[in-house]
Amino acid sequence: MASLADQAIRWQEDRLVLLDQRALPNKVLFVECTQASEVVAAIRDMVVRGAPAIGVSAAYAVVLAAREQYAVAPEDWIRRMDTDLQSLAQARPTAVNLEWAIARMRDVMARTGPGDPGPVLLQAACKLHQEDVQANRALGAHGASLLEDGAVVLTHCNAGALATGGYGTALGVIRSAHAQHKIKAVYADETRPWFQGTRLTAWELLQDNIPVTLICDSAAASLMRQRQLAWVIVGADRVARNGDVANKIGTYALAVMARQHDAGFMVAAPTSTIDLKVSSGTEIEIEERSQQELTQYHEVALAPAEAGVWNPVFDITPAGLVTALVTEKGVVHAPCEEKIMALMKD
Amino acid sequence: MASLADQAIRWQEDRLVLLDQRALPNKVLFVECTQASEVVAAIRDMVVRGAPAIGVSAAYAVVLAAREQYAVAPEDWIRRMDTDLQSLAQARPTAVNLEWAIARMRDVMARTGPGDPGPVLLQAACKLHQEDVQANRALGAHGASLLEDGAVVLTHCNAGALATGGYGTALGVIRSAHAQHKIKAVYADETRPWFQGTRLTAWELLQDNIPVTLICDSAAASLMRQRQLAWVIVGADRVARNGDVANKIGTYALAVMARQHDAGFMVAAPTSTIDLKVSSGTEIEIEERSQQELTQYHEVALAPAEAGVWNPVFDITPAGLVTALVTEKGVVHAPCEEKIMALMKD
Repeated sequence: MASLADQAIRWQEDRLVLLDQRALPNKVLFVECTQASEVVAAIRDMVVRGAPAIGVSAAYAVVLAAREQYAVAPEDWIRRMDTDLQSLAQARPTAVNLEWAIARMRDVMARTGPGDPGPVLLQAACKLHQEDVQANRALGAHGASLLEDGAVVLTHCNAGALATGGYGTALGVIRSAHAQHKIKAVYADETRPWFQGTRLTAWELLQDNIPVTLICDSAAASLMRQRQLAWVIVGADRVARNGDVANKIGTYALAVMARQHDAGFMVAAPTSTIDLKVSSGTEIEIEERSQQELTQYHEVALAPAEAGVWNPVFDITPAGLVTALVTEKGVVHAPCEEKIMALMKD
Repeated sequence: MASLADQAIRWQEDRLVLLDQRALPNKVLFVECTQASEVVAAIRDMVVRGAPAIGVSAAYAVVLAAREQYAVAPEDWIRRMDTDLQSLAQARPTAVNLEWAIARMRDVMARTGPGDPGPVLLQAACKLHQEDVQANRALGAHGASLLEDGAVVLTHCNAGALATGGYGTALGVIRSAHAQHKIKAVYADETRPWFQGTRLTAWELLQDNIPVTLICDSAAASLMRQRQLAWVIVGADRVARNGDVANKIGTYALAVMARQHDAGFMVAAPTSTIDLKVSSGTEIEIEERSQQELTQYHEVALAPAEAGVWNPVFDITPAGLVTALVTEKGVVHAPCEEKIMALMKD
């Protein structure tokens, strides 16, 4: 049976059902979306998060939007979808998978014949979803092959089944290596301000009976210094043509620390996360989120009301700090533009 | 008028009154201690924290213990205090100021004549307290002299008035530089897991009308890369003879990142924090605190119950990463054993 985390995004009874990641690990709640605008809100409000998961959800949102517009104007539904797709694309700025999924669905839209586009688009969305899971299984195996037996690894944020169509990217590597008994210990950074590590990664790994130890984000350096960390393994929200990586805030610091402590730094991401239109990380928009993410937790105020807040939720890791970029097509060691272009041409 | 933060430790109506740092910034509460054991509990439970503040509180605890034991056995109070002083010394392990303050009070105890030792010991504790404030004012001025005009600075944890007898160490430098209009912006790391930055540093600086911007601990690297940070300024819990620094978890990572980004790394600490008995950082005991600090906030569970936790609350920064050690006796640039021994002999 698929684990709960693997059912975080599912199409059921003509609607998109999303596991509400804001409520984990305390409550398992689902949000049902029958309209595209509800999916936009779910992405913006982080009911669903993680670059590939946002892409998969967006594909299903396109199905919902087409259904709505076709019902209103069967001759003109494609043009009428422009506004829907625009607001979908703008739901969150940093993950490229959102644009990528919309572009793929647009291709299918252009090729639909007359009549209800719903079934064809739904089939395309399901295929994109399945391909994401397959990609994660493939890249998981590639990544696991880089680990030595008895590896101690650290992951940041949640790049798991919850962040993807299923199985996960960074956690896909960890799942695969764990199944091969290669892993001695998994550490997870708590990942402020949203606690993806504490709330999501710990929950997801424990659901699969993979033991995990939480640390503060700021304890990672001590961990590397004292506990012979072999690899930092993270996902990505967007990888530039030159190999620069946009990922959860704190990733860049981990890459610097890993280099300093002779640990490997692995970025696990499907090729749908590679954005050839972007030449380097400086061109990637970094989302800043609400001050409240730092100044309160649930109803409890943490900070005085007058304090300023700077809350960028992603950062850029230069390609030069990446030991291996692991994709479903294989591993790129010490990624650079030339190697990435070659990978994408295959 | 002294600010609230400067009255965080005070002797009043024959008892020690401590501002309860656990309740800030939401509530201003005080804990009154009439017995030494209450001070031990207050240190252990972090009513009062910060190395110099722990030292000052311990000095007053010695007064309370002496008073208790003298009342019971006027001929034998010094010997009977052994147990009290032992449990006081063990209240928290990493800050050296605790041992230092007890040793200083022991010297005074040994020199008291017959009769009630209370008044003499109280005078000694008040003197130690005042000297700490004076040391902070002196080191604050020394540290500020290192800053260029328009400096952007980052501080970690709370090394302020709340963490000392008053005025603060790292925040003493920032107060002094701010008074000279040298500071363009102060950033404070939130400092997981206890949120000293969010709860205490932001509160304390805003009480003095010094604007402050909070960031996640893991955003410090992005800050350095994007906002021309001039200095990271931190306090210390113990400085080894060779200049290695034990301080709040996350300090070591900041020192590595500062070096990587050509920012200065300043450790502001009175000489009472320098422990000549310890040759290097590897000999310093690093306290680990409760798992709950990571797995829940107030009544809200953050993590699944089965998750492991590693929660070291201090780390060691090698002397080689310290640009300047700033004490009340002056600045030690690129500290090493030779320079520190010379400083301590002055």
